[in-house]
Amino acid sequence: MSAKRVPVAVLGATGYVGVELLRVLSRHPGVELTFVSSEQYRGKRASEVYPALIGWADLVLEAPDPEAAAKRADVVFTALPHAAAAPIVAELRKLDRLVVDPSADFRLKDLDAYAKWYGHPHPAPELVKESVYGIPELYRDALRTTRLVAAPGCYPTCSLLGLAPLARAGLIKETVIIDAKSGTSGAGRGAKVEQLFSEVNDDFRAYAVAGHRHAPEIDQELAAAGASAGALFIPHLLPLTRGMECTMYVKVASEPALDRLFSDAYRNEPFVVLRGAEPPTLSEVRGTNRCAIGWRYDARTGYAIVMTTLDNLGKGAAGQAVQCMNVALGLDETAGLDAPALVP
Amino acid sequence: MSAKRVPVAVLGATGYVGVELLRVLSRHPGVELTFVSSEQYRGKRASEVYPALIGWADLVLEAPDPEAAAKRADVVFTALPHAAAAPIVAELRKLDRLVVDPSADFRLKDLDAYAKWYGHPHPAPELVKESVYGIPELYRDALRTTRLVAAPGCYPTCSLLGLAPLARAGLIKETVIIDAKSGTSGAGRGAKVEQLFSEVNDDFRAYAVAGHRHAPEIDQELAAAGASAGALFIPHLLPLTRGMECTMYVKVASEPALDRLFSDAYRNEPFVVLRGAEPPTLSEVRGTNRCAIGWRYDARTGYAIVMTTLDNLGKGAAGQAVQCMNVALGLDETAGLDAPALVP
Amino acid sequence: MSAKRVPVAVLGATGYVGVELLRVLSRHPGVELTFVSSEQYRGKRASEVYPALIGWADLVLEAPDPEAAAKRADVVFTALPHAAAAPIVAELRKLDRLVVDPSADFRLKDLDAYAKWYGHPHPAPELVKESVYGIPELYRDALRTTRLVAAPGCYPTCSLLGLAPLARAGLIKETVIIDAKSGTSGAGRGAKVEQLFSEVNDDFRAYAVAGHRHAPEIDQELAAAGASAGALFIPHLLPLTRGMECTMYVKVASEPALDRLFSDAYRNEPFVVLRGAEPPTLSEVRGTNRCAIGWRYDARTGYAIVMTTLDNLGKGAAGQAVQCMNVALGLDETAGLDAPALVP
Amino acid sequence: MSAKRVPVAVLGATGYVGVELLRVLSRHPGVELTFVSSEQYRGKRASEVYPALIGWADLVLEAPDPEAAAKRADVVFTALPHAAAAPIVAELRKLDRLVVDPSADFRLKDLDAYAKWYGHPHPAPELVKESVYGIPELYRDALRTTRLVAAPGCYPTCSLLGLAPLARAGLIKETVIIDAKSGTSGAGRGAKVEQLFSEVNDDFRAYAVAGHRHAPEIDQELAAAGASAGALFIPHLLPLTRGMECTMYVKVASEPALDRLFSDAYRNEPFVVLRGAEPPTLSEVRGTNRCAIGWRYDARTGYAIVMTTLDNLGKGAAGQAVQCMNVALGLDETAGLDAPALVP
Repeated sequence: MSAKRVPVAVLGATGYVGVELLRVLSRHPGVELTFVSSEQYRGKRASEVYPALIGWADLVLEAPDPEAAAKRADVVFTALPHAAAAPIVAELRKLDRLVVDPSADFRLKDLDAYAKWYGHPHPAPELVKESVYGIPELYRDALRTTRLVAAPGCYPTCSLLGLAPLARAGLIKETVIIDAKSGTSGAGRGAKVEQLFSEVNDDFRAYAVAGHRHAPEIDQELAAAGASAGALFIPHLLPLTRGMECTMYVKVASEPALDRLFSDAYRNEPFVVLRGAEPPTLSEVRGTNRCAIGWRYDARTGYAIVMTTLDNLGKGAAGQAVQCMNVALGLDETAGLDAPALVP
Repeated sequence: MSAKRVPVAVLGATGYVGVELLRVLSRHPGVELTFVSSEQYRGKRASEVYPALIGWADLVLEAPDPEAAAKRADVVFTALPHAAAAPIVAELRKLDRLVVDPSADFRLKDLDAYAKWYGHPHPAPELVKESVYGIPELYRDALRTTRLVAAPGCYPTCSLLGLAPLARAGLIKETVIIDAKSGTSGAGRGAKVEQLFSEVNDDFRAYAVAGHRHAPEIDQELAAAGASAGALFIPHLLPLTRGMECTMYVKVASEPALDRLFSDAYRNEPFVVLRGAEPPTLSEVRGTNRCAIGWRYDARTGYAIVMTTLDNLGKGAAGQAVQCMNVALGLDETAGLDAPALVP
Repeated sequence: MSAKRVPVAVLGATGYVGVELLRVLSRHPGVELTFVSSEQYRGKRASEVYPALIGWADLVLEAPDPEAAAKRADVVFTALPHAAAAPIVAELRKLDRLVVDPSADFRLKDLDAYAKWYGHPHPAPELVKESVYGIPELYRDALRTTRLVAAPGCYPTCSLLGLAPLARAGLIKETVIIDAKSGTSGAGRGAKVEQLFSEVNDDFRAYAVAGHRHAPEIDQELAAAGASAGALFIPHLLPLTRGMECTMYVKVASEPALDRLFSDAYRNEPFVVLRGAEPPTLSEVRGTNRCAIGWRYDARTGYAIVMTTLDNLGKGAAGQAVQCMNVALGLDETAGLDAPALVP
Repeated sequence: MSAKRVPVAVLGATGYVGVELLRVLSRHPGVELTFVSSEQYRGKRASEVYPALIGWADLVLEAPDPEAAAKRADVVFTALPHAAAAPIVAELRKLDRLVVDPSADFRLKDLDAYAKWYGHPHPAPELVKESVYGIPELYRDALRTTRLVAAPGCYPTCSLLGLAPLARAGLIKETVIIDAKSGTSGAGRGAKVEQLFSEVNDDFRAYAVAGHRHAPEIDQELAAAGASAGALFIPHLLPLTRGMECTMYVKVASEPALDRLFSDAYRNEPFVVLRGAEPPTLSEVRGTNRCAIGWRYDARTGYAIVMTTLDNLGKGAAGQAVQCMNVALGLDETAGLDAPALVP
């Protein structure tokens, strides 16, 4: 391997976001995996847990020790549960490592909102201001110089990429309805009865109708983009492993120039695919870092309909985290992320 | 078999609605299958095409001849493509048979709307007025005396059962958003590339965003129930065989008494299951004639959210068609339709 | 309800075999569910755990107390883990209840084999002789008078129904190869990572190649049927919820009269469907108590190939348990079990 | 793009093997796609048919004209139906192009066997001798100099990679049993009722028990590897899109040194993963060019059990075709084929 490769660590490497980080980073030409951790499987090779990684990620899994990680890596991904991530992030920042945090701990700027939705005070409030919300299409400049990336949730990424151009154009003045559908890998690899194959297969349902933790994150970023109203967000569970779709309903006063809005926003974005009137599919983005966007104006009712798809573990988590790292390190933004989806 | 069983015929018995009619009717205690037709498989036994029906529906499939059907049956189900059904329905009505028509031909009362959405003038306009829209929960009295049931589409049934109580209470004054998701059996048994397993599996997408043929049917019935606004209806394709979910968004001026509205409407309905704040699932209705309904009021945004599920071939097609027949014949309304869903 | 209905109890009512027992028994015309137990969900209604059972099994789940069960029921199904079942079965037998035990505790006649495969001495050895192996097609006479049914495993049922006619005809003289494939519900409802949707979906693999606990049960019954050789049994995990297929390879000296053998064995059996040269499918048996059998003789290699399918929770577990109860109680053997599979 | 890239053409680019060729070749560093054909979609861009290929394969699909292909490409992949491929292959060979043919036309060396199994005389018998069977692990030397690669079927590749080491060691003296299971993409993209999602989902069955066209191909290559007996091959259809598993049963006289046999055969093979006693999974090979192999000796019955998995469109078709091209062109054998499988 080239001496110039940046050494990187993944903490929490055997969860679903963690293993996707391993998959992407192991074929990334500009980095080298030097440290991987897993409480549950420490002492095993990552490729023993996931045989798909044989020959790609054969490192032995260690305890999630931030000092050890910092000793061996310049960049650390903290694919850990919320609340568990923050103190480790804090320690890694003290050791001046570039941290990309896919946990929820640094996404909400409002500490009260964090306390309310996550049920405990923020574990490292002083770092919240320092962090940059990790959607490069929205915050690329800030990401170029940050040392702490708050990688966003899959639902916020999927909905915000579709809504930001409308919000910036001042078109979001009434509650936006976000009808979102996600594959099961978004629920993680914890052993839960409701995630068993026999429970999920052939089924479909809404969940967390009362309020999902991603809702305040969506509202925060909608407001940041210029929306004067928030979202009504209802997630649903799809019987498939990877993929997320949002169908979004925006009441507008008159027909907006949707084609132009989306083209202006994303024409040069390598990971946004504009599909025009064609509804995007999950299959075209699975395993990639892409977000596909379709749209339609319904003259009869005065609604703009925006449909977005992405892979909840790709652009919705690990892929975007690597994209943020690329930006922060000044690498080619697409490095390690350039492969077409598997079809069929 | 008892001499009192009513002889019934199914035309189009090997499509997915047809075979579900065979399954339900073959164990119905009050009827006897006497005539089944299939252009494609004539000469074979129904159970050769569907081995699940061995011992249940071993009749030989014949040509879809209405006279032959009328000679042997008092009730005829016409599970035929739209436009193909109408002339056969007309002939069967001349022969004074009770006709239950799961095709789209008699659902729209507005002949111009029919011509616009189906691309040709109505083939039997004189019968349109005679027909009764086949949702017993909404039209039970009219169904008791009709001789022509226009069995509704799966999307209209699924959405209207959720919205009718609100419409009747005068709560639908702005565009209702219907975000609907359907399994693939709703697309029928025609051999189409986009319905191949390899195309549908693990995928999800919106379709017919420009306008689905069920949209005017929904608006017609919303208006009949008292709504002063129509629906914005976006269907999506789920990677599963049977099942439909609608999540519906109704903007209301103040908090409605949803519990009471639904209880008043459906307390005594054998096939409506009220789930309150619990989002209904597909698995609990699969293979049944049930519609499950959940609801929630979101005070922050002023929306009532109604979620409904049913089996698109059951309560969404064949099951409801048999329920209508039961009503029209004066049989126990649940006859042949009383079995719990298979779980897991 | 009629006073003549036999009161029945289900212990372990919220596991997958348990809920299938509830589904079947709740619409059985000759019995009445009077007692249901669940450690995990005691205090809830069965239909709260499984909303598909609303209106069908609304009883409150209690602790699995054999005395309480015996007080209220004449027949008790013990859908409990192996080793946990035996002492409860023993107590129920002391109270002279008819016990149908879907656990593994009374299947192996050889107490040493039990100790070896289950890792502990048999908890109630004195009852082993009393028990009758619950495949009515093989042991109907003994089942008529027994008070303790050892309901067999799904793999033994699926393979033995296909092999017994050959074994009885003296055709099994060399190792039979059983290549078996099962849906995931056979693994039960315990929360295990390897049974998560994201782990099972789109995957397939052999497992327990070293030896599955059902292997000695198969050999025991093959020998009982007259085979002079045992089986090499390799199970595989299918990405579907319900269903099992066995493709079996029997080396024979000359072409056997397979059509006649199967016809003689099963012509009058209500739950065996003979499919001749047609390979049976899972869909035709799902949710039923049927076993479908196809066969072929390969002259080139001298092998008889037998293919069987059943629903691992139906004929492979709960359905057959109810069939055995029907036999033991002298009821119509098909009572409660007569419904066609759902297609598509 | 570099001037050194080899120009390549894909005929039949919108079938499932064709699109997998596009996916692999479009990110292959040593080649450039210059010509793609599709009867059905000519005039459209490949990425209009498969939006996953937007930005990767935006070429316009043309008619499958061999002269046009030869004018623009040095290598031509003929992903066409059998019998249709041969005359085009013949013309391309006249024009001295390197042809890699994934069709069945040049796999069988015995012209009579071809006529029998494919129902017509061979369309280009003179080329059969020239062609080399395209499994590099077995025929690498011959592939280095050939100009016509007969890319093998998915079933033969999957079974032969598992059996060849045993055959070469003289261990295959009795009929080998190959119990094979394949995902649905192997059936191609033709619109057939039996391949509809509603027909395949949740189902499983054997098929072509009488004889599958891949059987003589397997026997031919088993014999070539030194087996003195052929195979009894029974394929089954899995409810998943991509993936194939073979469980194979070889009767042996005494315990073979399986670990050593497999290690000797494949230690240095980049695309064979040796899993020892661990049964290989489909998920670890999906989307890759890998074949994973596990094995076990069953002392009780004297059988060696070999289990293999691969992606029927990857190592079973398009991936291996590209691997063969790499060998024939003298490129790095793994070029374009080095990416880990997507998990979960």
